[in-house]
Amino acid sequence: MDLTGFVGLGRMGRPMASNLCRKGFRLVVHDIDPRAAAEVAALQARAAGNVAEVAAEAGIIVTMLPNSAVVDAVVAGPEGILAHARPGSLIMDMSTVDPLTTDRLAAEAARRGVAYVDAPVGRLASHADRGESLFMVGAEAADFARVRPLLEAMGTTIYHCGPVGAGTRTKLVNNYLAVTSCQLNAEALALSQRLGLDLERTLDVLYGTTAVNGQLKIAWPAKVLRGDVEPGFTIDLAHKDLSLIVEAANAARVPMPVAAAAREAFSAARASGFGGQDFSAMVDALCALAGIEKPRLKAPPDAA
Amino acid sequence: MDLTGFVGLGRMGRPMASNLCRKGFRLVVHDIDPRAAAEVAALQARAAGNVAEVAAEAGIIVTMLPNSAVVDAVVAGPEGILAHARPGSLIMDMSTVDPLTTDRLAAEAARRGVAYVDAPVGRLASHADRGESLFMVGAEAADFARVRPLLEAMGTTIYHCGPVGAGTRTKLVNNYLAVTSCQLNAEALALSQRLGLDLERTLDVLYGTTAVNGQLKIAWPAKVLRGDVEPGFTIDLAHKDLSLIVEAANAARVPMPVAAAAREAFSAARASGFGGQDFSAMVDALCALAGIEKPRLKAPPDAA
Amino acid sequence: MDLTGFVGLGRMGRPMASNLCRKGFRLVVHDIDPRAAAEVAALQARAAGNVAEVAAEAGIIVTMLPNSAVVDAVVAGPEGILAHARPGSLIMDMSTVDPLTTDRLAAEAARRGVAYVDAPVGRLASHADRGESLFMVGAEAADFARVRPLLEAMGTTIYHCGPVGAGTRTKLVNNYLAVTSCQLNAEALALSQRLGLDLERTLDVLYGTTAVNGQLKIAWPAKVLRGDVEPGFTIDLAHKDLSLIVEAANAARVPMPVAAAAREAFSAARASGFGGQDFSAMVDALCALAGIEKPRLKAPPDAA
Amino acid sequence: MDLTGFVGLGRMGRPMASNLCRKGFRLVVHDIDPRAAAEVAALQARAAGNVAEVAAEAGIIVTMLPNSAVVDAVVAGPEGILAHARPGSLIMDMSTVDPLTTDRLAAEAARRGVAYVDAPVGRLASHADRGESLFMVGAEAADFARVRPLLEAMGTTIYHCGPVGAGTRTKLVNNYLAVTSCQLNAEALALSQRLGLDLERTLDVLYGTTAVNGQLKIAWPAKVLRGDVEPGFTIDLAHKDLSLIVEAANAARVPMPVAAAAREAFSAARASGFGGQDFSAMVDALCALAGIEKPRLKAPPDAA
Repeated sequence: MDLTGFVGLGRMGRPMASNLCRKGFRLVVHDIDPRAAAEVAALQARAAGNVAEVAAEAGIIVTMLPNSAVVDAVVAGPEGILAHARPGSLIMDMSTVDPLTTDRLAAEAARRGVAYVDAPVGRLASHADRGESLFMVGAEAADFARVRPLLEAMGTTIYHCGPVGAGTRTKLVNNYLAVTSCQLNAEALALSQRLGLDLERTLDVLYGTTAVNGQLKIAWPAKVLRGDVEPGFTIDLAHKDLSLIVEAANAARVPMPVAAAAREAFSAARASGFGGQDFSAMVDALCALAGIEKPRLKAPPDAA
Repeated sequence: MDLTGFVGLGRMGRPMASNLCRKGFRLVVHDIDPRAAAEVAALQARAAGNVAEVAAEAGIIVTMLPNSAVVDAVVAGPEGILAHARPGSLIMDMSTVDPLTTDRLAAEAARRGVAYVDAPVGRLASHADRGESLFMVGAEAADFARVRPLLEAMGTTIYHCGPVGAGTRTKLVNNYLAVTSCQLNAEALALSQRLGLDLERTLDVLYGTTAVNGQLKIAWPAKVLRGDVEPGFTIDLAHKDLSLIVEAANAARVPMPVAAAAREAFSAARASGFGGQDFSAMVDALCALAGIEKPRLKAPPDAA
Repeated sequence: MDLTGFVGLGRMGRPMASNLCRKGFRLVVHDIDPRAAAEVAALQARAAGNVAEVAAEAGIIVTMLPNSAVVDAVVAGPEGILAHARPGSLIMDMSTVDPLTTDRLAAEAARRGVAYVDAPVGRLASHADRGESLFMVGAEAADFARVRPLLEAMGTTIYHCGPVGAGTRTKLVNNYLAVTSCQLNAEALALSQRLGLDLERTLDVLYGTTAVNGQLKIAWPAKVLRGDVEPGFTIDLAHKDLSLIVEAANAARVPMPVAAAAREAFSAARASGFGGQDFSAMVDALCALAGIEKPRLKAPPDAA
Repeated sequence: MDLTGFVGLGRMGRPMASNLCRKGFRLVVHDIDPRAAAEVAALQARAAGNVAEVAAEAGIIVTMLPNSAVVDAVVAGPEGILAHARPGSLIMDMSTVDPLTTDRLAAEAARRGVAYVDAPVGRLASHADRGESLFMVGAEAADFARVRPLLEAMGTTIYHCGPVGAGTRTKLVNNYLAVTSCQLNAEALALSQRLGLDLERTLDVLYGTTAVNGQLKIAWPAKVLRGDVEPGFTIDLAHKDLSLIVEAANAARVPMPVAAAAREAFSAARASGFGGQDFSAMVDALCALAGIEKPRLKAPPDAA
């Protein structure tokens, strides 16, 4: 079997690469932190000395990197993947980047006879650990068929959203709703607390009407409403995603006033020291600002 | 059996009063529009000449009126309910009003030996027609027991949210989430359309993550996404509720920047002529502003 | 000479009434706090026992009260001015209220043969002390002529803005710009501080371009930029005015997204304990939130 | 005398280069549009074939380019200025870019023994035509002395704001206030129009209080309030600057909710077709949205 390349072994990339190894894929990996690469190499992957080596050896190269600028350098830089990739190889970028970067890199790849797929990741790091991620994929049909086995090894839910670029764009729309819902919930529950309403009764009502949202129903009762603000997804990362969204919307001439207001609320939460907490802790940030008691469910989750 | 009074026979009050009649309650009713009262009277209710008559004859008086000022006048005005109510009677206000009005009227009622319950209504006018409303009730336990049979005759879901005022406050929190979700969805789908994403595929993804909300999942596919903007709940009414919410939040010293941004978005939609459409048509208003094709599901709902 | 009535002897009303006394007007005054009335009475005014007495004795009755609800009660309540005013008398309301209240009270006054003038006050309490206030007057020409001598005794700048209601409306527009400029300046200077710019040099530039505004140029160098946050006009009062403005704009179907965002910023400043400081301290509130050094001019004001 | 290089001969660069020629500087110029270069060459400048030639020949190279990405390519690209500049030469970037780009390029220049100055331009294109621009300069003292003669040839007002990067940062702060003032004024005058106030009288009041700002007092009476929306500075460019500002603020962890709301208002104006009009036409965009008559001064400017 052909080697699969993997560049970027951080909090998300490491478990994803590990899952590929465990499911029998042969990997050549790289990370700027050699310890991260060594850790994955312990699972029978080969640790390459640099990106060029990965590109030269692999048929499919996966990238999982922190932002657009890094993806740009790793893919299109002078010592990057495209400069060393074999014709006919395929790059699958799974980072969250701005869609114009995706479009540009895909066009550059096409000029060099390299296929390009964008497949950003949904759900949390803990899902990646368990191989239960969700992927939003932008790819031509044939390329989607090529990457499908890898995606099935790393996650449980795979959406083919359209041609190259559609994965990244879908992720922006998805994360806009998920992240902004947190600020919505923060405002609703801070108000509810201040008005003296009982949290359990109020949630009962909200869960029974169209006021409900996935964050409030699924994510929050296991996190901030129990006092757990350990990050599944930090306020800092949510702010980064909102920034990508607001920039993409402004570039595309779509006025999004609520997105912009939400972004500044995340900026305020970061500025006052909440950046490293889970993004559900937006309600704690607002309650701290306004001197309101934090909303906490009384009973433990399993004691009901 | 004691007579039940009902003041306010508009789009919501009429079907609610009718359902009470049908379930065997004996009503004495009033509306400033005599035709509305006559219509309900055809169902064996007695049409009183004025509010004072209703107050003098009934043990429980229900009010279902357009705003805080009208409720204030009908309950506490010189010819209003409190001026003519029997000691021991009970007022149940089912209008959507600001909570400080509820508190003030409840205190005034208590001074005169009259019980007070706030029980605003959730769901749409079409639910009221079928006796399927949802009620958020603020009441002392004994008063809640008194009004419960009436509520059961008019709806299917009854939440006892806490003492007097808790119903109104819960409704504000609930409607904040439901109404603002519409602006969230409007921005998300306008962006999605502009980015060239396929609507069905995008909704598939959103419905499978915590990005989902009740409006997007339950309400919209049967309304705006099918091109149906006939109002279940108008943008004008949504704007009214958001205004109550923003005012209540500012009075309570809870900063709600997303609520404020959403309210101005509803104000802009009203200003550009969308006030009479269903509140899901916020996405049409945004698409019209930005020259974006409206999002519409391709297949008819039953043809899947 | 006819008696002039004055109701409301708070932080603004007291010096205004005092100036009238000093300039030779004979006053009959009232305040709910008898000590306030006694203090003015020491200047040869007569302290009446209640509003009705003031109304019955005076040809012109001035009101200077904290908000719309109090003005409503004092003017139109059962023991209020209109119930006891002589035909041909004139009410001049100098409070800051919502314009629909002004319109309603003016109409009610007209029905009873009483003239009505709205003349809200610009500038600060310290200007009122020195008889240097600015007035925005809504009045018919003849009524304007009647009140002009009083206004000239209390201030130095008098604008006849149009018919009744035009004073209140002009004040809203004026205060919108003045108050929101403070949030603009707060954001600009917080950013400037964080970016490491020199305050004096930056102000030099801003004062030389169209970026300048009256708050930044005139008000701030003598207040917050010297570390003086003693209130000339508190953040709480600025928030009250912004609330009137946002409500009036929404009632008038004028979308004002920046006004709404600014109002929530004032709400946040209040919530975090800055409500009693001068409204120029909005920049201190933002710097405190974001951990930025407060902008302060180095040299004392007179050492230049 | 040494040759001066000039790269970027658009709407701003052309008159600036022309003024340098007229004042006796010997220029070597380049633009991607050869006609623009030819036009300046007619003034005795030499039109170079590419950027490299300009860099190789000139002691000081001025850049006046549309955005950060273009400046980055022209300065640091493989065929850019730094690759061909002589040691001891100086780059003065007069474009409006994000400050992190300035910092990065200045550091890169320093590594190659090239001095770097940022000197973005204030005021309008018509000022540049007349050599009346304003410059905000970030430079070491010695470098400032080197560029000063050029700046004096192109403008009338020169601010030395601090070390490299301080010019760009000051321009962001300055333009934040100027551009956002336009949205403030738009909201204030739209509200004023809707409330039926007389424009002249209202401006009289505003000009006499701290509500005034430079746009309203200086810029608007000659532009939009006379019906002149020919761009001195377009809504599109104002939107670009606001975008730089909002991004810089978010990168610097300074919450700026009013900036964010204003940016979306400019985005909405662009989306509805006003992007090419003068930025004072924000009030026309808002009035068009809300069905309000545009504010126009009655008398011609010289007929007073």
